[in-house]
Amino acid sequence: MAATQTCRRPWEETASAGVSEPRTLALDGALTLAGKRTLRGVEVAYETYGRLDEWGANAVLVCHALSGDAHVAGTRPGEDPETARPGWWDIMVGPGKAIDTDRFFVVCSNVLGGCSGTTGPGSVDPDTGRPYGPAFPLVTIEDMVDVQARLLDALGVKRLAAVVGGSMGGMQALSWAVRYPDRVTAVVADATTPRLGAQAIAFHAVGRQAILEDPHYANGDYYGGDVRPDSGLAIARMIGHITYLSDESMHTKFGRRLREGDDYAYEFVSEFEVETYLAYQGARFVERFDANTYLHMTKAMDYFDLRGEAATLADALRGVRSRFLVTSFSSDWLFTTAQAKQLVAALRMVDAEVWFSEIESAYGHDAFLLEPEAQYELIAPFLTEALVESTRRAREVTPL
Amino acid sequence: MAATQTCRRPWEETASAGVSEPRTLALDGALTLAGKRTLRGVEVAYETYGRLDEWGANAVLVCHALSGDAHVAGTRPGEDPETARPGWWDIMVGPGKAIDTDRFFVVCSNVLGGCSGTTGPGSVDPDTGRPYGPAFPLVTIEDMVDVQARLLDALGVKRLAAVVGGSMGGMQALSWAVRYPDRVTAVVADATTPRLGAQAIAFHAVGRQAILEDPHYANGDYYGGDVRPDSGLAIARMIGHITYLSDESMHTKFGRRLREGDDYAYEFVSEFEVETYLAYQGARFVERFDANTYLHMTKAMDYFDLRGEAATLADALRGVRSRFLVTSFSSDWLFTTAQAKQLVAALRMVDAEVWFSEIESAYGHDAFLLEPEAQYELIAPFLTEALVESTRRAREVTPL
Repeated sequence: MAATQTCRRPWEETASAGVSEPRTLALDGALTLAGKRTLRGVEVAYETYGRLDEWGANAVLVCHALSGDAHVAGTRPGEDPETARPGWWDIMVGPGKAIDTDRFFVVCSNVLGGCSGTTGPGSVDPDTGRPYGPAFPLVTIEDMVDVQARLLDALGVKRLAAVVGGSMGGMQALSWAVRYPDRVTAVVADATTPRLGAQAIAFHAVGRQAILEDPHYANGDYYGGDVRPDSGLAIARMIGHITYLSDESMHTKFGRRLREGDDYAYEFVSEFEVETYLAYQGARFVERFDANTYLHMTKAMDYFDLRGEAATLADALRGVRSRFLVTSFSSDWLFTTAQAKQLVAALRMVDAEVWFSEIESAYGHDAFLLEPEAQYELIAPFLTEALVESTRRAREVTPL
Repeated sequence: MAATQTCRRPWEETASAGVSEPRTLALDGALTLAGKRTLRGVEVAYETYGRLDEWGANAVLVCHALSGDAHVAGTRPGEDPETARPGWWDIMVGPGKAIDTDRFFVVCSNVLGGCSGTTGPGSVDPDTGRPYGPAFPLVTIEDMVDVQARLLDALGVKRLAAVVGGSMGGMQALSWAVRYPDRVTAVVADATTPRLGAQAIAFHAVGRQAILEDPHYANGDYYGGDVRPDSGLAIARMIGHITYLSDESMHTKFGRRLREGDDYAYEFVSEFEVETYLAYQGARFVERFDANTYLHMTKAMDYFDLRGEAATLADALRGVRSRFLVTSFSSDWLFTTAQAKQLVAALRMVDAEVWFSEIESAYGHDAFLLEPEAQYELIAPFLTEALVESTRRAREVTPL
């Protein structure tokens, strides 16, 4: 009898990255933000996978999206790998995966302003001994990137083989290329945009209004109390969730199906499956996320404009020294293929090396979390080339 | 010297329909709703334009959308026609316009469940002497249509030359064709759908949640108090508003422009123009609209399924005796061309006469309120034919 052979493909969610230890780095001195305010005592929560090579040039920084955190792959200490939900991009990070932890030193940190370990509005303000709340200064994508640069300094990473991110993480990856051109060999800008358009800003604005007008928001100073602006945050999340899916995927997943039976309730209850699903997503989100961080993340995305002070996007990109993989997803109506193509066109105007692919998918913006195979096939070879190039450049600078 | 001649085109907003007197009809007896509940003492607010002909067959019923009312064109008594904002579809209704009040007897009534004169959740419940509030039963598109039928009976309208509506008004128009096939010569189904998909239901669900969770909603029983769920209603309206526009029109209208200057505020304030615009739209809406009506209207739309109990949409349409003009707008992503085409295909399967046109427009769903010329060119000739046919059929039934 032939033995059944289990063949795992390199994009399965397997938690094969192993147990990942959450770590925290305390930054020395003060951090000056784009908005001119300063933060003291900043702490950065991060996780690493794989080992840094002798050149300090095999590092891949993974940047998370709005609701992500430092736990990108594998399990946490004490979790049962058979039952625990692995990190948020486990499909991409692990031995033999697209971001191959056998070859790369993978770093992922919670962003500045976050609520999963890195200093954010829920952290204690050293000046007052109380949570910042509304006193937390607005942070930008560039501020997040500067904190990541300080973290990589501390970890001995001289040169990033690549910075990889989807959605808001992709904004960070693009910002890295402009802000630290000599430290980034390659950029994977996945389901992202050089800047949001009016519609995306509008959805963010409504979500923020739902939080700001929740009576439990209490002007942002709710950390000491028993209640939080869960209602507003859930509504904001529900709006966001609709924009992350495509009409097609919602139609396929829910259609007009009712939760129970075939008859309408004739009451204001969640009765269509899609309503129940959204309400569930909203309710789960408030258990793990902070409303102030939601305000800060959406505002940071709204503010992000890769063009910066330059006259054109291409002008802003003239100094980049990275190669780029830009991917978009056909049904993503929030971070559209048209926006990705504008980025690609600007990169080509400055003679940057660019790979571009629009991946066919019905999953909308969420596709970057749900389409492992197509992303594997693009990202794995791109990172293989990036590693060769990164090592070559590191050797030029510091011959052993 | 040649005199300058002012030439008005037949789709300009001119208030040429004149002064329209708001009227109210009290229905006799009780109204049994689709949800099996009954309403007593129903009043219908309506306006008429033009004169009913001797055959009672030149009437056009105009059905309004979510936020509309009976005041479709012209001015109200006491208003200055030079300065007053005319009715909501003045571009379409008036002498020489697409719905020509020189030839048609035009009727528009506020829908059942509304907040502009027709019995709705803010009306006094004759059983208690207090506003219905949460006791108001859920109404359906079919219930709205049944009330319109009673109104037309009272007005002596034997046969509708046409029923015309956009968005939720188009749902009513379609329902008329199925529910009263012998009373409707022609149907204009404008920017509408035989049923909403999951995405549209999802947006409605989030808007309702914003209202239901507003502390001032008070379980719907807020009419006696000083406060109303304005915050929740404004958020619901803002969500709706985004869905009524297209990404392209928002980009053209607002882009990423800031309200003041070029520098970010680094505060949680409305600073992008699109934010200010939406906040303004939300704030204005709560001055004229009732949150309970918003709940009822969105739920009625969610429930609407022209297919009804039939196996297929075509099966549901087998009994129709009307001709149809179906229009969609290229950038409308809420009531899509694909949905309109499904309707057209089903109508053709049952050999109904159908004119179909997708109108090129950047205005999104709102285009049916903003594209007068293209609609004029379709609706005017369609209604001319409808009038001939309606008169012919009326004469067959009741020769003079």
